[in-house]
Amino acid sequence: MRESAWMPTPSNPFAVKALAFDVFGTVVDWRGSIIREGNQWTHTKGSQVDWGKFADRWRAGYVPSMNRVRQGSLPWMKLDQLHRLILDDLLVEFKITGLSEQEKDHLNLVWHRLTPWPDAVNGLARLKKEFVVSTLSNGNISLLVEMAKFAGLPWDMVLSAELFHHYKPDHEVYLGAAELLGCQPAEVMMVAAHPNDLNAARACGLRTAFVPRPLENGPGQQQAPATPESFDVTARDFLVLADTFL
Amino acid sequence: MRESAWMPTPSNPFAVKALAFDVFGTVVDWRGSIIREGNQWTHTKGSQVDWGKFADRWRAGYVPSMNRVRQGSLPWMKLDQLHRLILDDLLVEFKITGLSEQEKDHLNLVWHRLTPWPDAVNGLARLKKEFVVSTLSNGNISLLVEMAKFAGLPWDMVLSAELFHHYKPDHEVYLGAAELLGCQPAEVMMVAAHPNDLNAARACGLRTAFVPRPLENGPGQQQAPATPESFDVTARDFLVLADTFL
Repeated sequence: MRESAWMPTPSNPFAVKALAFDVFGTVVDWRGSIIREGNQWTHTKGSQVDWGKFADRWRAGYVPSMNRVRQGSLPWMKLDQLHRLILDDLLVEFKITGLSEQEKDHLNLVWHRLTPWPDAVNGLARLKKEFVVSTLSNGNISLLVEMAKFAGLPWDMVLSAELFHHYKPDHEVYLGAAELLGCQPAEVMMVAAHPNDLNAARACGLRTAFVPRPLENGPGQQQAPATPESFDVTARDFLVLADTFL
Repeated sequence: MRESAWMPTPSNPFAVKALAFDVFGTVVDWRGSIIREGNQWTHTKGSQVDWGKFADRWRAGYVPSMNRVRQGSLPWMKLDQLHRLILDDLLVEFKITGLSEQEKDHLNLVWHRLTPWPDAVNGLARLKKEFVVSTLSNGNISLLVEMAKFAGLPWDMVLSAELFHHYKPDHEVYLGAAELLGCQPAEVMMVAAHPNDLNAARACGLRTAFVPRPLENGPGQQQAPATPESFDVTARDFLVLADTFL
C-alpha cells in the first residue's frame, strides 16, 4: 500500500484506508448464477423448474430468516444453515423430490459458486493497489472463501457477519470490521448496491460508495429506491469506482 | 479448488482441505527484517544499536506477554499492543531516547513489514491451487493484512488469534479456525516451524506439517528440539511442501 492512501489526497479526499464490499448482488450475480446452474441441473435430471422464480424465492427468504436471528427467535446460525432451511421449504413448494442428502447439500452450496459481475475482478484488482479490499457480507467465512477461489476475487481480507454473530444491518458488523482492520470507522468505505446497507454503514461513521446493480433482480425489475446524494461516491461499476480514486 | 482436494488421493492422503500457516518465523524472517530496517534507521539517525540483539529481546518478550493474557493477568489485547509494551521497555534498555510518539508507533509496526523466506511466496502460490491457504497467527488481523500486502503473500484467508480472543497454543484458536473454514479439524493441516504450535494443533485433531526454519533465530542458533516423526509431513520449505502434494 502506498503511504498516500493513508492521508487525504486529491484522488482520495476521504483518507480511506480500506474498502469493505457487500457481496451478494454487489460483487456477484446470485440470480444469474443460480439460473445457470439450475438449467444445467434440469439438463441432467430432466425436471422442469422455473429457476428464475426459484432463485427469487430463495433470496426472498433471506432477509426474514436473518431477521429471526437478529431478533432472537433463532439462535445464531451461519448463512449456509439459513439457506438450507429456506431450501427445504422451496423443494416442497417447487415439488422437487427424490434428492439425496448429498444432492441437497450440493444445491445449497450453489451460493459458494456465484459468478461475479463482468467488472468485478478487474475493478477489485485495481482498487487493491491503493486500498485494503475486504468483503463485509452476511455470507459465512467458508462461503466467501470458496466463492473467492471459484470466482477469482482477489480479496485482501474476508470479513463476515459470522465473525460478530450479528447480521447486517446490525451495527456490530460495521464497527467490528473497522476494529479488525485497525481503522477508525471513517477510514473504511462500505461499497454496496443496497441503500439500506449503506445507510447503516453511514450511521456507524463509515464512508459509503453506491454501485447500483440494475440487473440484480433480473431484467426489467425494480431496485430499492436510492438517493445517490446520500452517499460519498456513486459509481456505475467497480472500474468507474477505481477511476474515481486512482 | 479441484474436487480432488476434498477426498483422499495418492497426492493428498490426508483429505486435507485447508492449510493454516503460522507466520512469524514460519513464513517471514522477523529477525532479519528487523535488523534490516534497524540498520536503515541507524544510517538515518546515527544512533548505534545492536539490532540483532534488539530483535532477539523483542521476540523474547513475546511469549511471556501473551502468557499474561492467556492466564488472565492482562485483559485481551492485540499483538500490536503487546509489542508496544515490550518496545517501551526495550527503548529504555537500549538507551534509545528522543523518539516522537509517531516514530515509536512506526517502529512498533515493523512487525507489519516483515519479509518472507525466499520460498514462501512461490510455495504459497502453488499450494493455493489445491488448498485454501490461510494464516493462523498470533498477529492481529490488521498486522497480517498489511504484511500480506507488503510481502505479496497470496492468502485466501487471514485468520488470527484476535478473532477468538485467545492466543496460541490455546485450543480455541485451532478449533475456531477449523469451524470458520467450514472444516472438520482433521481437514485442516497446521504448517509451522515450531513443534509446540504443531503439538497443540495435533491435540485438537488437526493434521501437522513441520517446516523447520534453522535461520529463524540467526546463524548458528539453536532451534527448539523437534521429533519430525510426530508430524504428518516434514518439508524443508514451502516448495518441497508443495511437491509433497501436487
